[in-house]
This record gives sequence, structure tokens and C-alpha cells, in this order.
Amino acid sequence: MSHLSSLNTYFETKREEHLEELKQFLRIPSISALSDHKEDMKTAAEWLAESMKSVGLENVSIDETKGHPVVYADWMHAEGKPTLLIYGHYDVQPVDPLNLWESEPFNPQVRDNKLFARGASDDKGQVYMHVKAVEALLQTEGKLPVNVKFCIEGEEEIGSPNLPEYVEANTEKLAADIIVISDTGMQGPGKPAVCYGLRGLTGVQIEVKGAKGDLHSGLYGGSVQNAIHALVAVLDSFRDEEGTIQVEGFYDNVRAVTDEERAAYAALDFNEEALKEELGVNALFGEKGYTHLERTWVRPTLEINGVFGGFSGEGIKTVLPAEAGAKITCRLVPDQDPDEIVEKLKAHIEKHKPVGVTVEVTEFDKGKPFITPFDHPAIQAAGRSYEKVYNVPTAYVRGGGSIPIVAAFDEILGYPVVLMGFGLASENFHAPNEHFHLENFDQGLRVIGDYYHEIAQFTSQDLKK
Amino acid sequence: MSHLSSLNTYFETKREEHLEELKQFLRIPSISALSDHKEDMKTAAEWLAESMKSVGLENVSIDETKGHPVVYADWMHAEGKPTLLIYGHYDVQPVDPLNLWESEPFNPQVRDNKLFARGASDDKGQVYMHVKAVEALLQTEGKLPVNVKFCIEGEEEIGSPNLPEYVEANTEKLAADIIVISDTGMQGPGKPAVCYGLRGLTGVQIEVKGAKGDLHSGLYGGSVQNAIHALVAVLDSFRDEEGTIQVEGFYDNVRAVTDEERAAYAALDFNEEALKEELGVNALFGEKGYTHLERTWVRPTLEINGVFGGFSGEGIKTVLPAEAGAKITCRLVPDQDPDEIVEKLKAHIEKHKPVGVTVEVTEFDKGKPFITPFDHPAIQAAGRSYEKVYNVPTAYVRGGGSIPIVAAFDEILGYPVVLMGFGLASENFHAPNEHFHLENFDQGLRVIGDYYHEIAQFTSQDLKK
Repeated sequence: MSHLSSLNTYFETKREEHLEELKQFLRIPSISALSDHKEDMKTAAEWLAESMKSVGLENVSIDETKGHPVVYADWMHAEGKPTLLIYGHYDVQPVDPLNLWESEPFNPQVRDNKLFARGASDDKGQVYMHVKAVEALLQTEGKLPVNVKFCIEGEEEIGSPNLPEYVEANTEKLAADIIVISDTGMQGPGKPAVCYGLRGLTGVQIEVKGAKGDLHSGLYGGSVQNAIHALVAVLDSFRDEEGTIQVEGFYDNVRAVTDEERAAYAALDFNEEALKEELGVNALFGEKGYTHLERTWVRPTLEINGVFGGFSGEGIKTVLPAEAGAKITCRLVPDQDPDEIVEKLKAHIEKHKPVGVTVEVTEFDKGKPFITPFDHPAIQAAGRSYEKVYNVPTAYVRGGGSIPIVAAFDEILGYPVVLMGFGLASENFHAPNEHFHLENFDQGLRVIGDYYHEIAQFTSQDLKK
Repeated sequence: MSHLSSLNTYFETKREEHLEELKQFLRIPSISALSDHKEDMKTAAEWLAESMKSVGLENVSIDETKGHPVVYADWMHAEGKPTLLIYGHYDVQPVDPLNLWESEPFNPQVRDNKLFARGASDDKGQVYMHVKAVEALLQTEGKLPVNVKFCIEGEEEIGSPNLPEYVEANTEKLAADIIVISDTGMQGPGKPAVCYGLRGLTGVQIEVKGAKGDLHSGLYGGSVQNAIHALVAVLDSFRDEEGTIQVEGFYDNVRAVTDEERAAYAALDFNEEALKEELGVNALFGEKGYTHLERTWVRPTLEINGVFGGFSGEGIKTVLPAEAGAKITCRLVPDQDPDEIVEKLKAHIEKHKPVGVTVEVTEFDKGKPFITPFDHPAIQAAGRSYEKVYNVPTAYVRGGGSIPIVAAFDEILGYPVVLMGFGLASENFHAPNEHFHLENFDQGLRVIGDYYHEIAQFTSQDLKK
């Protein structure tokens, strides 16, 4: 019997038991953001540690940090085989507004083959699947085909403030060949996806100051620089009318998208017409020569996120404003460096600054872009595992957003990261009525189990980035 | 004895009496904005009417409007001579914050030859001067050299909502050759000024809308038009980098400043260095080839008064904003028409509107620019009267701001308007500790008396605009 057949039988037999056990995990209100739930965080970490022990994981520990603890476990008996580091989180988002929940957030309910509860999809459900995949392999095969380590944190929903320090302090303990994260989504129902790249982020606040104070536009208008006019001149200089960014050297280090990648994105048959309809716009807008997916996945951006200055109340106030400001952020792609980009932004602003004003620039937090090459064996292996279970081609995607902890792992440990998600965009993460489609729970368990076998075919050397 | 010598003697003799009488007027808290003071408004109108009767003015009436009444009076026995319509107001601004007044606002006090009280300068003091000039001429000469009509309203400080209707309904009663208004300021201490033009006003609010709602800049950034980017493109297109307005046809009807006017402004020796110091700017900024005074008096403007959109709180929010807006106003000069300019602004916005957004434009209230030609005899006569009394050259100035009621008079009656002000910019109109420099009370009385004689030299025909 192939390993997938054995897993199928095992998961079918155990389905009710697993679901009841997951419900126990989901009943613990482990809201990391609220100090009232500090004890619940401990309870959730302990529950997870017990669950890990019970399936046969070893060296289980609850590692203290300055915040909520990290739960660690491993199974390291596959000599000569690669090691997977599984990252996830046991904390959840707050549940307000409570009155919009159809069933209570911490009283898990199955309706229509969906499991409703806070954390069902993000991320307790997906963490639990990895634990149960280990259980299934140990039960059906007596051992794992690879070595695994679990690093499950309790602060993802508050921005992982303590995880980078923990990882840096434990590089030996966390030593592995690849990092696997199940905290993202699929392309859609029945459409599995492997995410192999994310954009980075950098940004600045621009503050323009003219006269000492706001002036009467009658007495001074036409003769004193208006801070808003000066600001819009700077802001309008950032992009041309087709959306191409005009900051000198901005595109210098952008890694070109390969023909293979473009073909993979084109195969996704993304419906731009439907997107326009959904967003209520009469046209999409962006760099010429790129599709929507390319613009949001492989091209960097510069967006004004906010602008302010002068009078914004009702009606008219004939003021000549002395101050105005804006916030801009850039999504970065490999191999742009956030620090270099900020310097280029500053040089651009300095160059385009009109007379009669001073301009102050403040930097925001930065995040590097991340990519595991499209043709990396760990990426392609994940695609194969999905295909075997879902019986459809896997989408190889990149994300337009940034997941800071992925960039941090990439930076500190330098291992290839594989984002294998089982969530769906419609599952209300961070909102009332979060749920998890149980067909992806069922199939995801098999995908993960198969993936361990797929990775077992490679040596550590094969998996080097 | 010349008429000026007689006036001197008369005003010297009567000075204490006049001052005490003015204090009575100032003791009435005629705050038009506050409904609690409705009775005080009536009292002030009646006090003024009595004062007019007592000096020999005739046909004195308190004319009801939908709001506070207008006080009318005339003296029409200078057959064949021109008629002056004197406009002013007996209402005053509110007095908050009361604790910042050194003496109570309605308990007039003289300190340092300044009369402190709400309304001392704006405008009861200046209205009272016109009444006393009539008294002095009738007492010393037995008659007036010209015909005069007084139209003193009670709603100037709340925007004269009912005066246009009153003027339109009483064009016969108010028929005159010129309008004289003493409700503006001098150039500085000892520096008299005649204001012969004011700028008009028009403006629009621009609202840009992109997608149905704000979007995640990671998921959509680079592929959907950003409402703020679209807005700044429109805003930045309004002026070139030297401040010249780029709206097609904007300058078409701008009346050129004459060499005579430029010479008059240059003679004022305006200190642009001191202005920069005062405003805290390292450079003035505006149309090339024009001085500060020209830019603010004879050239039209387009200023952004406010801008808003996206996130303006502390820190970063990586939103791709769906909406953004701005308020812009234009100061207009003769012979620009506010309605035409709004149409040109709209056409400009339509032309520069980027793809992927809709733009809505809302019009603000409009006001026409006003000018009495610089070389009009009534303007030059006012200058001569000032010079005789102050013994320095009169400044012929224009104002960068707008006084809506002046434009309304200009439009409804069409007579030349002469703005002969006796206030000083430092006198805290609309603020605590309003006061009036009594040297300008003393000298102003003589200027007005002399001005009636100056105007008497002209025929009605001479004074046509």
C-alpha cells in the first residue's frame, strides 16, 4: 500500500477524533493582544505541547520569551535525511464585534462542512494539521521520512515582537534545511497554491513647512509658497502618468521575472474584468507591459497612503497653509534593498523640493522582500504533493503583501521558505465568523504527509538556496 | 479762514464732548451674531439715529430688514452738487475670550491716546466720525458742500445677509454718485491709504474616487489607481514651478496694471526682506516679473487651501486609498468673472483627470473683484484730503482680500467706491483689546470734512465710473 493510501485510511478512521481534539484547542481563547488572556496563552501553549508529546514528537518545550512563549518540538531520527522547520502560531486575533458572530468564537461549531471558530483557519487549524500529519506517519509507517522541528509562536497576531530574538538565540536548535509555513491561503476552492515570494516594504513620511503659520490667502496668496502646492509637486514627481516610478535608480536591482514564471502566472487565467467589477473601477492602472498579477507580485510599487494639510472641514476657509504632509510606502521585490530605496527616495525628494519651503523626511520600519526560487526543489515538491491530493495543477504564486516574520526567518536563518497554505480568502481571518473549510483540513493532512515523503527524496545539498 | 482751519478749531473745541459721546455708542453691546443681543442691536440703531438727527441729518429712519435694521439719513440741499453714499456698520464682533481683555469690551477706556472698546475701530468709531464731520461742516459753514446719504447696517459682522436685498429694493433712495466706506485700514501709523480695488473669490472642492473602498497596498498596489496619486496629479497641474497658473484662459480677462499704478506701488517702498523675516520663509514665491504688492493686489491666484485622503494618523498604514479631496480657491482681479473662472477650472480638472478614478467638483460661493480706476477723481481727491491733513503722500493701494459687500454695492448700484480707512492693522479688530488710535480719530475727522469739499469741485458727470 502506498503511503498516501495508508494516510487516507488513517485520516478517515481518525476524522471525528481529530476534529473533536482540534475543537478543544479552539476552545482556548488565546488572544495575544489582550493582557486579560495571558493565562489562556499559557493554557494554549501547554495544550499544544501535550498534543505534540502525545503524537510522538520529542524534546517538547515551552520556551519563554519576553512575551508569550514559543512551543518547540522535534523528531530527528531520519538519519541523512533533510530537516523541515515547521513554523506557525497558536495565538489568535481578538473577536470584536462579538454580536456579528453566528456562533460563539470559542465554541467551535461545524456547519455545512465548515468549522466555525476564532483560529480555525488562522492558524490553530493549520498548526494542528502538521501535528496530526506527524502522528499519522508515525502510526502508519513507524517513523518519519524526514526530520522535523516545530517552532510555534504565540505572538504572530501582534507582529511577532519577540520571535526574531528567539530565533537568533536558537539558531542551533532551529537548524534545518527548509522552513515550511502553513499560514497563507489557496488560490480558491479546490485550487491549491504554493507561495514562493513576498514583497518587502519601506516608506517615509514627508513633512513640508512654509511660513511660520497659516496665512490669509487674500493678503499673501500669490506671493508666498503654499505648503500643499509644494507637497503635491513632490508627490506628483514620484510616478509618471502611466504609473512608472520616476525615482532615480528605483528599478536598478529588480530581479527580472522569468519566462517560466510569466507562463505559470498566465496559466492561472486571472480574470481582470471580474476584478474591475469587484473593485468598482472602470480601469486597472499600472506599469505598461505587465498583467495585474505581475504588477502586484513581481514589480515594486510606490503608493501614497495618506495626505494632509490645511483646512479639511466643511465648506471654505481661505487659508494659505503653512504645513502639509504625506505618507508613502513602497512594496519591494527581490533584489531591492529597503535601506537603499529609502536613500533614493530622500535624494528624489531633495531634488524635487520647491523653493520657499523646508521638507522633513522620517523613515518607517522596513522589511526585505523574500523569494525562494520558483524552480527550487522544495517549491516544486510542494506543488506535486498538492496535485496528487487535489488532482488539479498547483498554482505557483507570489504575494503582493509582506509577512515580516518570513523576511526575518529568511534573513536570520537563510533557509528556503515554503508557504503551503490551506486557508481560503473567504474564511474571515481577523473578522467575525472565522471558519475553515473541512475539505481542506482533510486534504491538507494528506498533502503534508505526502510532502514529507517528497522532501525525503532530496539531500540537504539539493535543498540549499 | 479756510474750511480746514475752521474744522480744526471746531474739532479741538468739541474733542472731549465727541469722545464722551462715542463712548456712549461703544457701551451698547451690539453683537449681531448673538441672538441674546437683539435688543442691544435695536438700542444701537436708535442711538445712531438720534445722533444723526441731532447733527442736522434729515429723513432719518430705522429701516427693518429680515435681520437687524439699517439706519438711513441724508442731507440733500447742495443743489447741483454730487451725492456721497456713506456705508458703515453699527454691529460688532463677539468678545470671547473675555479674560484676555485688559479692560471690559463695553466699558470704553482711553489709555496712551488709544480708545479701547469693542467696535472702537471696527466700525462704530469710523461711522461716528462721518456723522461728526457732517456736524462740524453744518456748524462752521451752515451747510454741506455736497449731498450725503448714510446707509449704516447692523449685519456686517455676520456677512451682510440682508443688505443686498435692501439695496436692491431701495436703489432710488440710495441713488448717489460715489460710495464712501470707512471700514478698512491705513498703511501704518501716520501713513494714510486709499484702497481702490479688492480681489474677488471663487473656488471648488475636488473629490476623487477610485475603488469602492480602501485597498490593501500589498494585494493591489501597483495595479489599481490610487486616489491620492490621481488627486496630486490634478493639483500639481494647476501651476507651473514658478507659480504661474496653467488653467487655460485663466489670465484672459486680467486687466493689466498700468505704469502709473506700478510707480505708485513702488513708491511705497515695501520691504520684502522684512516680510520674509516676519513670515519665517527663506524666499518669497510667485509669478516672475511682479513684486509682492503686485502679486497680492493686481494678479489673480490659485491656492490649495486643504487636502485630505487616506491615513493621516501616527505611523504607517499601508492602505491604497479609495478617496481623496482638496479645496482650492482663486483670488480674482478685474475683469475676471467668477462664473467663467469656475468653468475653466472644471475644464482643466476634466482634462487632467487620470484614468481609473472619477472626479466630482463642487462650487463654493463666489465674489466679484472690484476696482475704481486709480485715476478716478474720487480716488485722487481722497488722496489729496489725506495729504493735506497728514502731510505725507497718500498710499494708493489695492487689497488682496475680498469684502463681499463692496462687490455687492459695485454690482447693484454701479457707483465708484472709495475705501477711506482710518484703522491700523495692529488694532485687534475681531480680537480682545480692540482699540482705535485717537490721532487717527482726530485727523480722520478733518480728512472727511475736507473730502466733502474736494468732491464738491466735481460734477456728477465727472464722477461717472
